[in-house]
Amino acid sequence: MTDRLKSYKKESNYSYVFGASPAIELLAAKSCAAECIYMRTSYRDIDGLTERCRKLGIPVIISDKAFNIAGCKESCFVFGVFKKYDEPLFADKPHIVLVNPSDMGNIGTIIRTAAGLKITDIAIIEPAADSWNPKTVRASMGEIFHVRHQRFASFDDYISQFPSHERSAFMCDGALLPEDIEESRLVSLIFGNESSGLDSCFATFCNSVRIPFCDNVDSFNLSSAVAIGAYIYARNCKLI
Amino acid sequence: MTDRLKSYKKESNYSYVFGASPAIELLAAKSCAAECIYMRTSYRDIDGLTERCRKLGIPVIISDKAFNIAGCKESCFVFGVFKKYDEPLFADKPHIVLVNPSDMGNIGTIIRTAAGLKITDIAIIEPAADSWNPKTVRASMGEIFHVRHQRFASFDDYISQFPSHERSAFMCDGALLPEDIEESRLVSLIFGNESSGLDSCFATFCNSVRIPFCDNVDSFNLSSAVAIGAYIYARNCKLI
Repeated sequence: MTDRLKSYKKESNYSYVFGASPAIELLAAKSCAAECIYMRTSYRDIDGLTERCRKLGIPVIISDKAFNIAGCKESCFVFGVFKKYDEPLFADKPHIVLVNPSDMGNIGTIIRTAAGLKITDIAIIEPAADSWNPKTVRASMGEIFHVRHQRFASFDDYISQFPSHERSAFMCDGALLPEDIEESRLVSLIFGNESSGLDSCFATFCNSVRIPFCDNVDSFNLSSAVAIGAYIYARNCKLI
Repeated sequence: MTDRLKSYKKESNYSYVFGASPAIELLAAKSCAAECIYMRTSYRDIDGLTERCRKLGIPVIISDKAFNIAGCKESCFVFGVFKKYDEPLFADKPHIVLVNPSDMGNIGTIIRTAAGLKITDIAIIEPAADSWNPKTVRASMGEIFHVRHQRFASFDDYISQFPSHERSAFMCDGALLPEDIEESRLVSLIFGNESSGLDSCFATFCNSVRIPFCDNVDSFNLSSAVAIGAYIYARNCKLI
């Protein structure tokens, strides 16, 4: 595998998970996608990763050079190579829908938050940042392997696949509060792009929801807005 | 000012605010700290920045070279230079207390969220990432100029200055829920470091609070945890 190892590209069929804990999540949740685990010569395996790999039949390669090729930081002692995979959303689960998210860190952080709140189905509407980029995977702390995420060419595509979900669109001038979102498992919590938010037309085919905040502030950071909205929903629905 | 312009250093008395909107927040909230505003030759001043500066007597300098020196991205057409300033926390306001935060983006994002929730006093316990770094200022979207933030050498220092605040420490094994935090204006909402959280000793001199989440997940991202905890508190206290 070292021979084929290259710096990550969006078009690649493979991606990387940097760090021992996120790599453990890969093995725990999606070992079928795991190709191999790289360790630095200086890595002390207090996590029992070698043993986990042995049990799963996943090769362990000890190579410092590989870390330069993959683009790891010096503080990273472990990384895993995995095949990208498709995992369609479940139709009977609540969804978080990210419309045109542009920041990989935000996508990863939102996936981590969603997993924590037991919302395990994330739709991403194109154009959007790369959800398999190692930066996204890292920001998710490996939780990307515990949720389903599916990319859609347009919001219409998403709706045509999931017409029955009650749609709650988070907008600065929304009519409802997060506390008002229906206590149903069939809800889509919809959030717009970091800069532009959701187009006002979303209010015509969704319930519009507003997180109350001080007038002087333009908006919340996207991942903070999702954390607030999804937490209130998850608590009301007793997911957590 | 172009002559003296240097890439940012933590020790410097000055810092930079990148972007037109954050620079406008500087002028709106802390014009006394503003030294000058730089614009690229290609900047079209749809924001009326030049006029704002004229009214405030703040020099505008048009110079592309300055953007390289300050370390701006190409997509940045405006930046402001400001003097760092001290602004002690108010004793009669709720506080967010960040113990040893290590990520500048997190500090900035938390300041933006806090401002949105009308929690305007942020304590930062050393050692901590630089809260005046242009990255922090940028992540706050300029909201850093609308809140007070104060750095403390230790948590004991903070307590000795604000002994009367009810202390709520967010910990993975906390006893209370965010909904249980006292509806008082004299509350400290305390959050630990991104990797290590709060030491278990905090439970001995604080109420410990747990954001409920799925057992499989290690923790939330720090700024997401603050968003959830602070939102619940701000709603319960009718700040927003």
